[in-house]
Amino acid sequence: MESAQLSRLCVHTITTKPLALPRAIEAYRDLGVSGITVWRDALAPLGIKESAKLLAGSGLEIVSLCRGGFFPGITESDRTKALDENRRTIDEAAAIGAPLIVLVCGAVPGIALIEARKQIEDGIAALVPYAKQANVKLAIEPLHPMYADCRSAINTLTQANDIVEHLNSPQVGVAIDVYHLWWDDRLESEIARSGNLNAIFAYHVCDWRSPTRDLLNDRGLMGQGCIPLRKIRSWVERAGFAGMIEVEIFSDEFWQMDQIEFLTSIRTAYLDHV
Amino acid sequence: MESAQLSRLCVHTITTKPLALPRAIEAYRDLGVSGITVWRDALAPLGIKESAKLLAGSGLEIVSLCRGGFFPGITESDRTKALDENRRTIDEAAAIGAPLIVLVCGAVPGIALIEARKQIEDGIAALVPYAKQANVKLAIEPLHPMYADCRSAINTLTQANDIVEHLNSPQVGVAIDVYHLWWDDRLESEIARSGNLNAIFAYHVCDWRSPTRDLLNDRGLMGQGCIPLRKIRSWVERAGFAGMIEVEIFSDEFWQMDQIEFLTSIRTAYLDHV
Repeated sequence: MESAQLSRLCVHTITTKPLALPRAIEAYRDLGVSGITVWRDALAPLGIKESAKLLAGSGLEIVSLCRGGFFPGITESDRTKALDENRRTIDEAAAIGAPLIVLVCGAVPGIALIEARKQIEDGIAALVPYAKQANVKLAIEPLHPMYADCRSAINTLTQANDIVEHLNSPQVGVAIDVYHLWWDDRLESEIARSGNLNAIFAYHVCDWRSPTRDLLNDRGLMGQGCIPLRKIRSWVERAGFAGMIEVEIFSDEFWQMDQIEFLTSIRTAYLDHV
Repeated sequence: MESAQLSRLCVHTITTKPLALPRAIEAYRDLGVSGITVWRDALAPLGIKESAKLLAGSGLEIVSLCRGGFFPGITESDRTKALDENRRTIDEAAAIGAPLIVLVCGAVPGIALIEARKQIEDGIAALVPYAKQANVKLAIEPLHPMYADCRSAINTLTQANDIVEHLNSPQVGVAIDVYHLWWDDRLESEIARSGNLNAIFAYHVCDWRSPTRDLLNDRGLMGQGCIPLRKIRSWVERAGFAGMIEVEIFSDEFWQMDQIEFLTSIRTAYLDHV
């Protein structure tokens, strides 16, 4: 039973940021974690080729590469640079065998949200052929409205679904992260809509601490906060999602812990609360 | 021209938290501020009666009392206590001549948002007769989704308008605060809807700093951030609102400044950016 459940547990390398990639792979495997989502910074020390070899022999399922996106820019040259960077990210995903890239879509204080959203949709549209050729999918991750200033102008699953619908490409879907979306009264119906669009490409979990002491790096372990994890999981599964459940936690507190202890807590929290 | 504009400038006592009420009144008047919204903590040192006398003779328009609300509770006794506290708040508003109370509706980590929203609507409904008798109106203030854990389960103007519509009482409307709502792609249409309901009871301004260093006390001065203040004001005015424009800023940084200097910056920022 436990091993069946663990077969869907994936951990993001950023969750255990202090561990270099080889050590993270070893620790995840030792603890029965089944999947890994790789952040680009984790690839840098060994380089893409060595990292890819390590991942291929790891026995872990490579779930996705984090992250592409950041499409909006004041000038056309900024936006072109962003597209180039996204193409490099697609190359990296293909090289490490990641079938998916998570997109943090971007926002720029000087650009109105409505314009930023248009630039985001245009940017994703421009990437689709390249992503298709590389056999890499793209997941739009709506971020919490507290990141609307400079991280993402896409702040609800409604907005992400709208883009998926407009682009109408099997290459483009959504990443549903409970941290960003738990508060939204449209979440249940929008998850169903994502399911109808065959667009649920990723599901991320953690928890919302009360109080939250930092806007970026104070996410909670599942069960430590107020997010109704079982309920949201039931919505996602009712919508047809049966993929990996990814633990993505940014936390100055947890990054200071012994990371093996932390991973053990993650496994327990995953079994008890997700 | 400038004095005409200043005729709509109101400042919240919490904005200049270090100033005791008598000093705040004097400073606002000296700087040409026309209205004052009083926070309950500002009434405590002198007591209601003395504070009321001071306010009556101040020449400032008393715009509202902050704040009531916090309706949800795990037990019925918690919820009853909250209603009693709200009745005391209504008494205070009546005593100081404030025609309006702003409601921060509340949220409790152990209570599902959907249930909290029901308790909020029930709580406001229970207060309406008492508020009517006291000739005090109630403004539902939707708070930013980052406060959905323990401050407010009402996080969009859509939700606030829904309650106003259900309760269908001239006593109940909304407070529109740009800090909480600027990111929402439904804001323009929901402001129009509030207008159609004759429900725009208050309009609060400040700005969203990038980066925001603290979830509670790092609001920016108007013009310092990314909120499209002129655009949102145009929506509010198109919806028929011609009342006070209230500056409500919580900021550890500004509270450390000389408060007269800070008020001078507020006046300039109000004239230049709102």
